[in-house]
Amino acid sequence: MITGKNYIGNALSAKGSKEFRTFDPLLNLETEWTFYEASEAEVKQAVDLSWDAFSKYQEISGSRKAGFLREIAHQIEALDDHLIQVYCRETGLPQGRAKGERGRTCFQLRTFANLVEEGSWVNATIDTAEPNRDPIPKPDLRKMSVPIGPIAVFGASNFPLAYSTAGGDTASALASGCPVVVKSHPMHAGTGELIASAIIKAVEKTGMPNGVFSNLNSSGIEVGQQLVNHPKIKGVGFTGSIQGGRALFDMASRREEPIPVFAEMGSINPVVFLPGALRTRANEWAKTYAGSITLGTGQFCTNPGLLLGIKSDGLNEFVQTLSDEIVQIEPSSMLHPNIISKYRDNKKGMVGEPGVNVVADYTTEVAENHARQAIVKVAGASFIKNPKLHQEVFGPFSMVVECAHEEELIQAIAGLEGQLTGTVIAGQKELVEHQAVINALQNRVGRLIFNGVPTGVEVCPAMQHGGPYPASTDSRFGAVGIHAIERWVRPISYQNWPNVSLPDALKDENPLGIPRLVNNQVTSEPI
Amino acid sequence: MITGKNYIGNALSAKGSKEFRTFDPLLNLETEWTFYEASEAEVKQAVDLSWDAFSKYQEISGSRKAGFLREIAHQIEALDDHLIQVYCRETGLPQGRAKGERGRTCFQLRTFANLVEEGSWVNATIDTAEPNRDPIPKPDLRKMSVPIGPIAVFGASNFPLAYSTAGGDTASALASGCPVVVKSHPMHAGTGELIASAIIKAVEKTGMPNGVFSNLNSSGIEVGQQLVNHPKIKGVGFTGSIQGGRALFDMASRREEPIPVFAEMGSINPVVFLPGALRTRANEWAKTYAGSITLGTGQFCTNPGLLLGIKSDGLNEFVQTLSDEIVQIEPSSMLHPNIISKYRDNKKGMVGEPGVNVVADYTTEVAENHARQAIVKVAGASFIKNPKLHQEVFGPFSMVVECAHEEELIQAIAGLEGQLTGTVIAGQKELVEHQAVINALQNRVGRLIFNGVPTGVEVCPAMQHGGPYPASTDSRFGAVGIHAIERWVRPISYQNWPNVSLPDALKDENPLGIPRLVNNQVTSEPI
Repeated sequence: MITGKNYIGNALSAKGSKEFRTFDPLLNLETEWTFYEASEAEVKQAVDLSWDAFSKYQEISGSRKAGFLREIAHQIEALDDHLIQVYCRETGLPQGRAKGERGRTCFQLRTFANLVEEGSWVNATIDTAEPNRDPIPKPDLRKMSVPIGPIAVFGASNFPLAYSTAGGDTASALASGCPVVVKSHPMHAGTGELIASAIIKAVEKTGMPNGVFSNLNSSGIEVGQQLVNHPKIKGVGFTGSIQGGRALFDMASRREEPIPVFAEMGSINPVVFLPGALRTRANEWAKTYAGSITLGTGQFCTNPGLLLGIKSDGLNEFVQTLSDEIVQIEPSSMLHPNIISKYRDNKKGMVGEPGVNVVADYTTEVAENHARQAIVKVAGASFIKNPKLHQEVFGPFSMVVECAHEEELIQAIAGLEGQLTGTVIAGQKELVEHQAVINALQNRVGRLIFNGVPTGVEVCPAMQHGGPYPASTDSRFGAVGIHAIERWVRPISYQNWPNVSLPDALKDENPLGIPRLVNNQVTSEPI
Repeated sequence: MITGKNYIGNALSAKGSKEFRTFDPLLNLETEWTFYEASEAEVKQAVDLSWDAFSKYQEISGSRKAGFLREIAHQIEALDDHLIQVYCRETGLPQGRAKGERGRTCFQLRTFANLVEEGSWVNATIDTAEPNRDPIPKPDLRKMSVPIGPIAVFGASNFPLAYSTAGGDTASALASGCPVVVKSHPMHAGTGELIASAIIKAVEKTGMPNGVFSNLNSSGIEVGQQLVNHPKIKGVGFTGSIQGGRALFDMASRREEPIPVFAEMGSINPVVFLPGALRTRANEWAKTYAGSITLGTGQFCTNPGLLLGIKSDGLNEFVQTLSDEIVQIEPSSMLHPNIISKYRDNKKGMVGEPGVNVVADYTTEVAENHARQAIVKVAGASFIKNPKLHQEVFGPFSMVVECAHEEELIQAIAGLEGQLTGTVIAGQKELVEHQAVINALQNRVGRLIFNGVPTGVEVCPAMQHGGPYPASTDSRFGAVGIHAIERWVRPISYQNWPNVSLPDALKDENPLGIPRLVNNQVTSEPI
């Protein structure tokens, strides 16, 4: 059942006076659930509780935290069809997508469970003493990662499960030993409450401290501001717009004690088509890209919004086929009237910029909240001199940039802001022949893709989901895969500390049996 | 020879109109060298050159970078006595300290040389493809660390060698593949120029790109501001005051593209004396701490500025002996008239706060620029309610806090700002008996020390030099040891990238022979 209330730790609470509803974009109607926005007192209560929980939770063993994370996954699966139905109503996305995202969410939780159960993620590093060293003795030093404190997680509009309430940020923070306070995304507050109820069940069932997780409803920006400015919040995870992420980053940087904000923000995911690939396979790539651009109504942060090539017959053929193909795809719904309205405005804005020509636009009548996909084209010179054309149009939209020559292509790439991904469509030999193009692209992105599409983010250790600003606020970290846990920890050293009082990861006898860097050698042996 | 000029890449340059001199605190006179502050055009020229150098330098192999770093160390050693003499004149520090710091600086350079020559620091992580996976094929993904771009390094007043021109920040940045532009510290610009000349010789001798290193003179704040605000600067390293570090952090956070600032700032390095230790060894610890407080005229970021204990005969005895001992130590010179004048002001300010009693003060006549060491004492209750008492007094000064009971001790610790270190003086059993005290301390510090002194920072992998804000602006990184390189890199993933075009660290055949995480197993085998 959806109550519309907040979870302040394990307790449901609705003390605020502000109410709001979620929206069913397919029915073009508000849903029947009323949500109660968290009051300032409730925000404070949730954070205070998370702070108290931190002192206990950070001491809990990896295997117990693993049990907690696995129980969350289990409880999410136990929500069964009810979760899928609410998800679909609040997003307009199809059941298949809902189920896939649920699977990914539970996979992430279990991956982090395995990580903390195994235990070597704390990067135990030991340098033993040399009491007789000349001129001064060398002390015994032992270093490991410890959690930084309560984390505020902001749900993403476009990933109600995998990057929201129990998504990657929450899973990695809980795995690290940090309590989490979620600011639920107002577009899918019902989905969020269901997931929160699963987490709270897991908290109770596995005996985790009350306050290790809270879920706050919010339709505006106040709850988020109060969270980020609260002195007991020590880090922030966010997935969403550049405007939103930058606002949180600015707020966190201005605090008396600044805290890290990991915002995964916009990206236009440039795709570079080298001439050889278009000479032989222009049609094939055009069909593939028509699918990638419209996948999920273009509502992915890895949506290919920029297609760059050099003026040629091959590029003409590619654009022609892409245009033909994309208008044949059945339009689908966007997540919310606000999102489609912004899509229409941004698209209109782009089309109005000098030198931008529409080469494909779905003009047939569409159902309410369904997006008309479009492709525009612009010359390299116009693109380079107009930074407005470098901005993201969130939705099924892409811009072809026709460069006069390779020099212009390099210049167009080098002038881009930071990106999550950069894709190269090329023959294998072409990479070597166009090294300067690849180098320019590499300096702008977090992930390079060869002969593929940027949509689809594999969850595995070698994935980097993040990139130079503004793809993310801190390019040194990523939001997907096990290394995402590194965002929530800091190293601490123990000098000459008695063995009995050291954390298990650093004890002489290595009771966890983990690999450690001991006197510059990796070993799982005791000392 | 000291020319007083800037190094813009490999070329000496003095186009600015502002001149300044360094100061010999022992002679209480300006030195004979005139330095030419870098003009805005020179700052721009240095950064542009570093940007051009970046595209080449990031491609240079680990073994060639290692040769470069070793050559820097060799060239620094070749400066021989000339360097030591200039260092001593510009700081008033003794020859032994100068030589020790030179040794540490060269050791750091060689440690990073070994690190990048070996090569596994890039954290190569590989997940191989599963083309037949259902429902969608798994791509091949390979991740490693790459340098972020040109770094601005700010020299530290109190470490002219180890944390300045060729210090830890420069060594780690150059090792990572990032060019460096140093803003030389105005108090030891001559020492800085000599070191810069050694680096430039190494650049030329090992064929590194011009612009991989520049050294800019500056007596004010403008050069630093221009550096941090330049769009081509991608990171900042700083060691110094909270005021200075925070100003740079704020500037960097407000940029259109925010960049990371790693500022290692103030710390009062709390030392907690548990009752048992003082019952049996109060005198011994008092003598040890009289030495630690006055070491290097108290001009270390790890200087023990706060001594906490519980009211007892043992604490009385400790304070009495500490007071007796410390006034017997011969006062020594501080680095600069500005520093001693600030020391006098801060000390006077502390003494004037309610409840603060002077228990030891060196009152005999001292030579010019020599600091009078002092110990003050305050009750726990007064300390807890007055945050002014939590601030650093840079110099040979320490405050004893006498707590009424353990609860008050915990409260005093929990109310502290973030610290580089926290020390516990205790019997081994006492750690277990006072777990809440230890937990409170652990949450506030980057390094915990048992029965020792915080001064002395061992350079080794297990050292953490950094801590919660304001000890450093980013507690997740440290400024000492091999892991300091992680500040200057970001991960990048290659998806389905042709083997021949992958960086060596990620190639199937593992030509570097480094350990890599391949499908979740660490191995040095080829794929």
